[in-house]
Amino acid sequence: MNRREEVVRRLAAAGVVLGEQDDVELADFGLGRFEEIGLALVVYENNDRYCAKELVLLPNQLCPEHRHPPVGDDPGKQETFRCRTGEVTLWVDGHGELTLRPGDQFTIPPDTLHWFRAGADGAIVSEFSSRSTDENDVFTDPQIVR
Amino acid sequence: MNRREEVVRRLAAAGVVLGEQDDVELADFGLGRFEEIGLALVVYENNDRYCAKELVLLPNQLCPEHRHPPVGDDPGKQETFRCRTGEVTLWVDGHGELTLRPGDQFTIPPDTLHWFRAGADGAIVSEFSSRSTDENDVFTDPQIVR
Repeated sequence: MNRREEVVRRLAAAGVVLGEQDDVELADFGLGRFEEIGLALVVYENNDRYCAKELVLLPNQLCPEHRHPPVGDDPGKQETFRCRTGEVTLWVDGHGELTLRPGDQFTIPPDTLHWFRAGADGAIVSEFSSRSTDENDVFTDPQIVR
Repeated sequence: MNRREEVVRRLAAAGVVLGEQDDVELADFGLGRFEEIGLALVVYENNDRYCAKELVLLPNQLCPEHRHPPVGDDPGKQETFRCRTGEVTLWVDGHGELTLRPGDQFTIPPDTLHWFRAGADGAIVSEFSSRSTDENDVFTDPQIVR
């Protein structure tokens, strides 16, 4: 089973059906260590006003520390994470470490450093947010290219 | 089983876990015929920038024709419906009738008349949108009070 099939299998096990228009994005942040540092994304909708995605994390997979800075009139992306399956440890600057389990959610203010890591069984997290512009994200690790 | 329990049961069957902070809203639009004209909602997040909800519809239940008009600087609520389970018939002014099945989605422009009705097994629809302000919704049926 390749990575994409593994993501689709995990989504299906959580009751998430993908449509013909859906694309699975595999992000390794240019580090080439996807299983450790990376995540898979299905972007349902991303327009000028709002964005919705599913984030699929393998066991212990890390999305590394970053923030969403202001861009022009936009104060920076604000995002709500809601855990659907598995467990995720979320660190947010000023809030410390939180553990999100199914049904738990947390809203990350704009321009605030954060990272998150899945637990031993992986995790699926729904992300609801303002417009997503990955190219503006600022990662703490200078080796990272989104 | 009361209405609220039925909604929670339908969500659980679709793999949607509710958290302690979640509330189930039962909307009958003031008509007192909930099983025919109404829907249940779980609002995950609703802030100045974006909103995310699950809509739970009983078999053949109708959400009646309405639109989200401009309010002040806001051009009106824009919303993306994504069918998770069941089947829903969505009518959108200028687009006609569409059938959404699991994995299908459609984005309704601001200030555009629409209604939707679940199929014979009911439906769960995820709604991603700009800010939700129910009190501004304009329903075609003058008897409706949201």
